[in-house]
Amino acid sequence: MPVFTEYSSASRELRVLPSFAPPLPRLAPSVPLDSKTEKYEVVIVGAGPAGLMLDLLLARYGLNDDSLLCVDSKPTTLKSGQADGLQPRTLETLKSLGLADEILTEGCQMWQVAFWNPSADKEKIIERTSIVPDVAVPARFPHEVTIHQGRIERILETDLLRYSKRGVQRNTKLIDVTIDEEGDAEYPVLAEIETEGQRRTVRSKYLVGADGAHSMVRRCMGLTLEGESLDHIWGVVDLIVDTDFPDIRRRCAIHSPAGSVMVIPRERTATGDYLTRLYVQVPGDVDPDNDQQPGDTRARRSKVTEKTIFENAAKAFKPYYIRPKTDGAVDWWAAYQIGQRVTDNFSVKDSKGVNRVFIAGDACHTHSPKAGQGMNVSMMDSYNLAWKLAYSIHGLTPASVSGQPDPILDTYQAERHTIAQELIEFDRAFSSMFSGQIGASEDGVGVRGLNGNKNPITGTDYLSGLLRPGRRLLNVRLVRHADGYRRDLQDDFTSIGRFRILCLTSSDLLYPQGTSARTLAALGAIIPQFPQSILEQVVIHPKLEKDFMWNDIPRELKQYSEMSFYSGYELDDVYSTFGVDPAHGALAIVRPDGYIGIVAELGDVKHVEQYLKTLIRTI
Amino acid sequence: MPVFTEYSSASRELRVLPSFAPPLPRLAPSVPLDSKTEKYEVVIVGAGPAGLMLDLLLARYGLNDDSLLCVDSKPTTLKSGQADGLQPRTLETLKSLGLADEILTEGCQMWQVAFWNPSADKEKIIERTSIVPDVAVPARFPHEVTIHQGRIERILETDLLRYSKRGVQRNTKLIDVTIDEEGDAEYPVLAEIETEGQRRTVRSKYLVGADGAHSMVRRCMGLTLEGESLDHIWGVVDLIVDTDFPDIRRRCAIHSPAGSVMVIPRERTATGDYLTRLYVQVPGDVDPDNDQQPGDTRARRSKVTEKTIFENAAKAFKPYYIRPKTDGAVDWWAAYQIGQRVTDNFSVKDSKGVNRVFIAGDACHTHSPKAGQGMNVSMMDSYNLAWKLAYSIHGLTPASVSGQPDPILDTYQAERHTIAQELIEFDRAFSSMFSGQIGASEDGVGVRGLNGNKNPITGTDYLSGLLRPGRRLLNVRLVRHADGYRRDLQDDFTSIGRFRILCLTSSDLLYPQGTSARTLAALGAIIPQFPQSILEQVVIHPKLEKDFMWNDIPRELKQYSEMSFYSGYELDDVYSTFGVDPAHGALAIVRPDGYIGIVAELGDVKHVEQYLKTLIRTI
Repeated sequence: MPVFTEYSSASRELRVLPSFAPPLPRLAPSVPLDSKTEKYEVVIVGAGPAGLMLDLLLARYGLNDDSLLCVDSKPTTLKSGQADGLQPRTLETLKSLGLADEILTEGCQMWQVAFWNPSADKEKIIERTSIVPDVAVPARFPHEVTIHQGRIERILETDLLRYSKRGVQRNTKLIDVTIDEEGDAEYPVLAEIETEGQRRTVRSKYLVGADGAHSMVRRCMGLTLEGESLDHIWGVVDLIVDTDFPDIRRRCAIHSPAGSVMVIPRERTATGDYLTRLYVQVPGDVDPDNDQQPGDTRARRSKVTEKTIFENAAKAFKPYYIRPKTDGAVDWWAAYQIGQRVTDNFSVKDSKGVNRVFIAGDACHTHSPKAGQGMNVSMMDSYNLAWKLAYSIHGLTPASVSGQPDPILDTYQAERHTIAQELIEFDRAFSSMFSGQIGASEDGVGVRGLNGNKNPITGTDYLSGLLRPGRRLLNVRLVRHADGYRRDLQDDFTSIGRFRILCLTSSDLLYPQGTSARTLAALGAIIPQFPQSILEQVVIHPKLEKDFMWNDIPRELKQYSEMSFYSGYELDDVYSTFGVDPAHGALAIVRPDGYIGIVAELGDVKHVEQYLKTLIRTI
Repeated sequence: MPVFTEYSSASRELRVLPSFAPPLPRLAPSVPLDSKTEKYEVVIVGAGPAGLMLDLLLARYGLNDDSLLCVDSKPTTLKSGQADGLQPRTLETLKSLGLADEILTEGCQMWQVAFWNPSADKEKIIERTSIVPDVAVPARFPHEVTIHQGRIERILETDLLRYSKRGVQRNTKLIDVTIDEEGDAEYPVLAEIETEGQRRTVRSKYLVGADGAHSMVRRCMGLTLEGESLDHIWGVVDLIVDTDFPDIRRRCAIHSPAGSVMVIPRERTATGDYLTRLYVQVPGDVDPDNDQQPGDTRARRSKVTEKTIFENAAKAFKPYYIRPKTDGAVDWWAAYQIGQRVTDNFSVKDSKGVNRVFIAGDACHTHSPKAGQGMNVSMMDSYNLAWKLAYSIHGLTPASVSGQPDPILDTYQAERHTIAQELIEFDRAFSSMFSGQIGASEDGVGVRGLNGNKNPITGTDYLSGLLRPGRRLLNVRLVRHADGYRRDLQDDFTSIGRFRILCLTSSDLLYPQGTSARTLAALGAIIPQFPQSILEQVVIHPKLEKDFMWNDIPRELKQYSEMSFYSGYELDDVYSTFGVDPAHGALAIVRPDGYIGIVAELGDVKHVEQYLKTLIRTI
């Protein structure tokens, strides 16, 4: 396009580079630069999935390198084995961070589970008894993804380096951590750390131990893991297989007369082959309930080798053969024995009642890997904690005005300890029964309270998307009024730390005196009371009696939701999915972590305002 | 997961890093390192969308920095204005390169077009007469995307740097290019280039001019643009608007009594605002057919300023207001006047008949920007040329055995010149009528020939996906046999330079003596005749009379298509979409650029073999 006159403003550089998440506004004073002591607002110990997720979220929310430090004792991200499963909810979170593409494209999408059991026909030995979907409840991504844990860590760390120049400080281990209010009441957490032999002292307002099952933070804080200590012994191996077993690319639970094997299909490798993970039961295993002689267990454990794992697998697969495709086809193998345990407390307070030290991920809960939940729950611990820490530190909570200990930080323990216990119970049942089918446990607890108002939601099938406090917002497909874009609702709920008002108008939207119009006008008066950009509004309307343009509806709607206003019936039946009667509508508040905080009647703006004011300060 | 025994192989690094596209095998000798002269197999001049796309594809196909050089006279990627539209086919290509995510997520998805015309009601002045989908034919992405051209270039260049250490050699301009067979018959293209004042001579086997509308390569080769010289004068402006016009987020064609404006919604900026592009007709414009006085035109052109563009826009939008949202809200503006022209030849041969110099993109065809086609056609020129150059250079074509000039390189001119002419005609009609609706022109020409066999495809609605040589393969959704993955067919047709056999079996697949089984066995005997990994096989089956496992179907199927074997009826009705009778099935060859080369009857493996052997050498 040959142009003969041209003008260009300097700001266009911004049009070309990758976008950054907008930081949260900061009302608290910024960190003073004090040359005497090394000080941060948050120190994170451990850069596995939990630590990296927390570090990345806090950096995106606006904590810079002067405010935030993450240390890890290892020299690099993980290169071997361990966790490999991402659940649908975690995929949604990664999507909301703009980090799902490589994982969805290059990970293994696991859509089905096959069950193999002993056959009545002796010649067949085993037979497939059923194939079921891997994910039984509605979800934006109706499958799990399996992919190398090190790859997830690399993706998180690569993105972190867009927001943090320092990134993770590696080769750095925690020696000790204490709470020392006398030394510095504002930065009372005192950590001694060591980088390649050099020790130093670091002070912080908060410290988070994401340092794994053997957490030093947990130990220093005197927190203890509660629960049983012993599970069966299992071998696990990642390899490229040669087999005639028909379901090698499905997740399988194989119960054969010769033992049990679980098949987890994995991602394609650079050579074009596909990896497989096998969990193989070690026969003659310890009985967790009766056999508590440490000597017996140790003797049995020492017998687990690559060779015995394959021998056991080969027996369980009969009459099919299975073997490594070539020499060197085994990527990784390990033997493990693990109990289901959860820590009594997930945080420790100072003398004034302020939560100062938190633990997250494997530091709080240990369980077997077979359900593919561990890495997910760990990252979700961080997802739950990050916005609460950021709001409190940035002076966005009411406590930052009142000067009292911030109750928002109490909700981390309240919400995540419940999840951890549910996980442990699920895992215990799963490991024992080895049923292979992921249950649909309640996957999140909201900041409840303040209920007592009338619930506008009809129905009880909460697993299918009904709006409910403490549950995540299900994705639905809708059509945007402004441009006809057929869009996913969750794409208006990105992980940028904002609260959202979700307004499902009733069918009276076109009546200026109707409840819908009055509600939108009232919401338009509430939004400016809060710090700028903290509250976003998403509006959905049911089928109305006629077509309309912007000037037929309240001007506050266009003002706050020009690009987040949708029809909710052309693609998915949103009202029915969410359990909302189009004649009455509903309001919901969605928290920064995608969980529904409260649900209210359409006209009940007071309730919404009251809820928001318990969590966010006004200006 | 505490592990007590662990082993890990060194190769696991490969599991963590981003994947690379596998290079094409190379049967030709590799480039000799000759210290006397700077030599490359391919030199690309220009790093706009056409040049970068070619450079990236060749680098992915396996041409390393010793073999491939791309130079550009500018110091960086484009930062201002110009092209902004990506068509569905281009989005598919970017997806097949793993480069679509940022574009789809952060670009503006343009789903609808609104038409505004003078109203019979004098007070309304203009009124919306219709809203139609922006893309009227089936496509994987049923919308256009608008996004800054500089951003596309940055995305391509960032990916290029994964494959090429050097990347684009910038600040480097072409001074002259000639074909000099006497100096070096194998590297006959002689280019004189200048980097920051330093001149040097570079020899190459092939040189591609992707150096824009004022192409130096075109001029040096004596190629000429044919066509009309003058179009109307238009102003174009990118800005953040403040307006009460209801369709500002839709693509609009506004014909008002006061003139014409085209609205192109654009992406969101870092500040959260949305950009808009306006094309504004300059009134009292030159009449291209009658007014050929250069003086008149020049005088009118000099009158186009930012102020006059807005004045004209404001008049056309009445009764709605439109203005820049703030001072500084104008990103870029330009005035242009352009004719539709196409070059007579897209390549120049040496004395032996070998194509040595090619031109691509704006160097071959110029047209107005309003149809949003330019950048797309330019990148598709490169997509068409890249695999042909790579096959010829890597010794993968029959000519590399025979030593004759490679006829595959003739097909670039044959195929792309037709497209360019179609584009010019479309653009001429579009610019004159300004209808705003993108037609569904035949968007690609295959290597035809070799037809004469019976066509197994029924139907004539070629725009809806019927298999047809010269058309791209439409995406369909299907379920994979091996794992139940609900998958997009196009994800088995990634841009890694491979040919694919697409076999739609008939409903006799389960009969060992049936046509399907015999065809799969015969194909299994053909594949190994060609260089390793060059041919991939994708198999789809219709509904069969019963469920089956791998041992019920030909073993060659699992051998070559374990992870690319699908049921074609559970999601989309693939047979009906492709025009294939499930009772008879069909075969097709899909070229590395996603275009269908030939279609054949299911049993006609001979025809497939014959076609492949004209394009790929056997081993």
